[in-house]
Amino acid sequence: MEKLELETKEEFTKYIEDIQSKDYFPKNVLGWAIVREVYGQINADKVLMSYIPVLNWDNSNLGSLAVLLGSLDIKAPFTELYLDLDKAAIENSLDKFKSFMGELDGTNHHNIMTLIEGHKAIAELEAGMVNPFKLVVITEDVPCSNVSQAYMKLHALSEGKAPLRSLNLDGIFGLLTNCAWSNGFPFELEYINAISIQAKMSGQPINIEYVDKFPTLLSQVMLAPNTRILDAKKVRFGAQLAAGTTVMPGASYVNFNAGTEGPCMVEGRISSSVIVGKNTDIGGGASIAGVLSGGNSDPITIGDNCLLGANSSVAISFGNGCIIDLGCAIASGTKVTITQEEINKINAVNEGNTIPESDEPAQVLKASELSGKNGIHFRMDSSAGLMVAFRSTFEIELNEDLH
Amino acid sequence: MEKLELETKEEFTKYIEDIQSKDYFPKNVLGWAIVREVYGQINADKVLMSYIPVLNWDNSNLGSLAVLLGSLDIKAPFTELYLDLDKAAIENSLDKFKSFMGELDGTNHHNIMTLIEGHKAIAELEAGMVNPFKLVVITEDVPCSNVSQAYMKLHALSEGKAPLRSLNLDGIFGLLTNCAWSNGFPFELEYINAISIQAKMSGQPINIEYVDKFPTLLSQVMLAPNTRILDAKKVRFGAQLAAGTTVMPGASYVNFNAGTEGPCMVEGRISSSVIVGKNTDIGGGASIAGVLSGGNSDPITIGDNCLLGANSSVAISFGNGCIIDLGCAIASGTKVTITQEEINKINAVNEGNTIPESDEPAQVLKASELSGKNGIHFRMDSSAGLMVAFRSTFEIELNEDLH
Amino acid sequence: MEKLELETKEEFTKYIEDIQSKDYFPKNVLGWAIVREVYGQINADKVLMSYIPVLNWDNSNLGSLAVLLGSLDIKAPFTELYLDLDKAAIENSLDKFKSFMGELDGTNHHNIMTLIEGHKAIAELEAGMVNPFKLVVITEDVPCSNVSQAYMKLHALSEGKAPLRSLNLDGIFGLLTNCAWSNGFPFELEYINAISIQAKMSGQPINIEYVDKFPTLLSQVMLAPNTRILDAKKVRFGAQLAAGTTVMPGASYVNFNAGTEGPCMVEGRISSSVIVGKNTDIGGGASIAGVLSGGNSDPITIGDNCLLGANSSVAISFGNGCIIDLGCAIASGTKVTITQEEINKINAVNEGNTIPESDEPAQVLKASELSGKNGIHFRMDSSAGLMVAFRSTFEIELNEDLH
Repeated sequence: MEKLELETKEEFTKYIEDIQSKDYFPKNVLGWAIVREVYGQINADKVLMSYIPVLNWDNSNLGSLAVLLGSLDIKAPFTELYLDLDKAAIENSLDKFKSFMGELDGTNHHNIMTLIEGHKAIAELEAGMVNPFKLVVITEDVPCSNVSQAYMKLHALSEGKAPLRSLNLDGIFGLLTNCAWSNGFPFELEYINAISIQAKMSGQPINIEYVDKFPTLLSQVMLAPNTRILDAKKVRFGAQLAAGTTVMPGASYVNFNAGTEGPCMVEGRISSSVIVGKNTDIGGGASIAGVLSGGNSDPITIGDNCLLGANSSVAISFGNGCIIDLGCAIASGTKVTITQEEINKINAVNEGNTIPESDEPAQVLKASELSGKNGIHFRMDSSAGLMVAFRSTFEIELNEDLH
Repeated sequence: MEKLELETKEEFTKYIEDIQSKDYFPKNVLGWAIVREVYGQINADKVLMSYIPVLNWDNSNLGSLAVLLGSLDIKAPFTELYLDLDKAAIENSLDKFKSFMGELDGTNHHNIMTLIEGHKAIAELEAGMVNPFKLVVITEDVPCSNVSQAYMKLHALSEGKAPLRSLNLDGIFGLLTNCAWSNGFPFELEYINAISIQAKMSGQPINIEYVDKFPTLLSQVMLAPNTRILDAKKVRFGAQLAAGTTVMPGASYVNFNAGTEGPCMVEGRISSSVIVGKNTDIGGGASIAGVLSGGNSDPITIGDNCLLGANSSVAISFGNGCIIDLGCAIASGTKVTITQEEINKINAVNEGNTIPESDEPAQVLKASELSGKNGIHFRMDSSAGLMVAFRSTFEIELNEDLH
Repeated sequence: MEKLELETKEEFTKYIEDIQSKDYFPKNVLGWAIVREVYGQINADKVLMSYIPVLNWDNSNLGSLAVLLGSLDIKAPFTELYLDLDKAAIENSLDKFKSFMGELDGTNHHNIMTLIEGHKAIAELEAGMVNPFKLVVITEDVPCSNVSQAYMKLHALSEGKAPLRSLNLDGIFGLLTNCAWSNGFPFELEYINAISIQAKMSGQPINIEYVDKFPTLLSQVMLAPNTRILDAKKVRFGAQLAAGTTVMPGASYVNFNAGTEGPCMVEGRISSSVIVGKNTDIGGGASIAGVLSGGNSDPITIGDNCLLGANSSVAISFGNGCIIDLGCAIASGTKVTITQEEINKINAVNEGNTIPESDEPAQVLKASELSGKNGIHFRMDSSAGLMVAFRSTFEIELNEDLH
């Protein structure tokens, strides 16, 4: 491995520019990270989870990546990397960051901090323990080929570095191992079984909090200061919660690759692939259908400034400023009655995406024909047994970027 | 600080009577407590939570308060107190309780026990640690001015010492800090962020169970023997559960300043400010609207001996002996059809609060016109698309105090 | 107590055959186990829980039972046993298993492993601690007479050794103590109260995760490798989850003596006594009524290959291949409209259990008349206010065992 100390910033800059100019340095880096993996208690070659202290996403911090490639003597082109970061590699890398050491204040140079902490941690590994530190690089958004890559993509979603639905997550269920999680730590189910007799007779079983392939979001990523999750189990790793979102502990759930794009109150379910806009209130027990269940393949979007009443169920998209009353259910085939007067009002806030007019005083439409439109209020008329729709009383904020 | 030993009960009685007769001794004490505060890991001046070992409420244990005021040399009138209880202050106070020491059996004299435990704990504080022990007194129910006051009021609600909705909780969201809670202990989010790289590289992150301004009820207050909460996250501190209440772990939730006044089965949501009477069954996923969401400003009360079916949604008040069928939703504007025959039966159990009669064989009423009435059964007539109401089969137990 | 070493397998076989031929050896053994009990912190005679390392069910491992009976000098007939297993008894038993010791590999001879671990654990008991190890035998399925028996039956259900609804659980609520559970361990509520002042003043309260008579399933029994519970609180001990079942953390819950008989997706509530078949999808917030609530006394069964839409509510049984749309509610008295054409199609997959024909083009039936039938799809016709039923599009797999 390459040993080289860079004493000055000038030497450092020259060094990384040199590496970055080489053919083998990737033209595009989706993400890279120094990770610490956790291995199976019985199957030591199985990666159960991967800690990502710093996720470098979308071509960020490529200088530090150059240092690591140099220290590891990587000189051939690659589309992905998954390499041991042993003590020598960490030390070689730190040698090149010498000119930064005086600047460290605990809040900056996160990749250098990671190497320093890795250097400490590697010294504390128990004898015989496999080195769990890796350098992982992804250049293209293809299906993940290992667990650490999968964790990097889930991190990118949960940190908001990648938009929801923007990443290729194919095959991720197959990569992840179904684990028993205790105190934030994963255990193989067969390990729990293997120690069960001993644990019970000694009165000291492991307290299992959940069993899943995915950990909770809170075990991997911290929230913005004004964001709340009142029960960690309610939000899977890979979900994205915009700052200001609150997830209540009643009937709520936010699956991976789903979440909010602005501050929202979430007391209901945001299924996988569902995106909710800003200032929207998902009432207690409200359910938004995802693509994993049923045969639904079009992911659902709920707009800004919507209100989903308690125990409502929604299987179409909503534009901005929509309301569904408590207890109402809208499947794509639900028949919805609207008067022409209300159609006119709704059309006024859906320029270019209007409901076709008719001569009748009212139309009965399939809910899917209303999918994605702004300003609709859905209600059950309980004196006639009709699901009706009309213009909601919410103001529609026009997206100025589009006008 | 005043040093004085009181050897006999007579001396003690004379001492406290003397203090209590002074002008500066408050005429009314809403509550007082010796507390242990928990401070921010980064912002050491920020109170994250406050342990209240004993809450003295509504002018109780004023003799012990007099001892503390004397020991702290408080000789000026006050409307609230928030004072350091250091080692000397605790010792001075204990000196005055000397005549009680022989009686202590671990179940009595709770304030003296608190001082004794404080004396031990203060000796075990780590060097340089700020003294976290305070004497907090509230004389009037005005908005809280510090976190310990807020915890005292939430305690009073959760212990049932103050009725639900009876306390001024204005500004409480602003006082409380949004924390990451682990193993019952609060951490500042910025602390979790600050240690994240080190924690992940060493493989020892803190296991975060929830992120909220409020802790769980069970972290602060214990339940009556026959009361159950099958998931601690489901009940926020400041909720009140009468003895015999069970909160199931499915879709239930009980927010602060809400709860039950008698034994109830709770499998649904009791939103903030909602009060539920005794022997009422809140079915799985049933939702009762609160004042925090929607524009609802009249808090909802559900009476005794009611049954809310699974996945029902209720946004009006119910009197006693009401039923709503599974899946039904009653907003204030929901149109409800009732025959005159059933109106007569309902009126018979709502003396002084009857539904106006009409000549028609049936009326269509807004649900808000039925709010708070006894003995109504709401059902969807699924052969006609009508929300109908009729006299429930439940007996209405008349409140004998009112007759 | 009987001391006797058996050096060879032949001696062992002869020894156990001798005991098993005796009159006092039970003709039928429902279950037996070596258990470790946990006692009250204040009431040391109260059993709070019982660890069952190995549940021997339905006449299994009777040779090992014979060894234990011999070692304990049990020579009189019995219908149940509940006996101290002290150090001498464990050693006497191990002496008889000498010929097996060379074969132990950590995955076999579970009862011998249990005795070996018990021997270690008994040496580590704190001085003065009551011996918590017992031999418990149940010969008949009568109401439980102690907590360890109750735990054995709940284990049998949760491990799938006994079919759901097959065991006599009468009086089980009375036997179990309502405990505060922390880190998998039960505490008496009065103990938590007794230490509360000390715990709060020292800043070290016990972190209570739930308060219930039953622990969680995951604290007692491990899942099959492809089975998941995303929140341990959601599944009570005594529930049964067939391999391949996933229980999501939103609004789901599986009570004791209820569960699934094949792989299912569970995002809703499976109340006590409800059985769900294989390949059935219980949508988010869907509720299946149990016998503990309401006045319902016929337990509900949901067949194979069914789909319960989000927030649907079901209080009748479903055959195979049934669908209920999102948000729909079916009580036993719900009026359901079906055309004769659809009745004919439904009857075609319900041989021997058909709906009576009529001359009318459509019938309005009570939902209870459709209980348990195959291939029905329930939907709200929101243009007419009618709950309608028709033949579902799901194939009905005929149970070949019945044809």
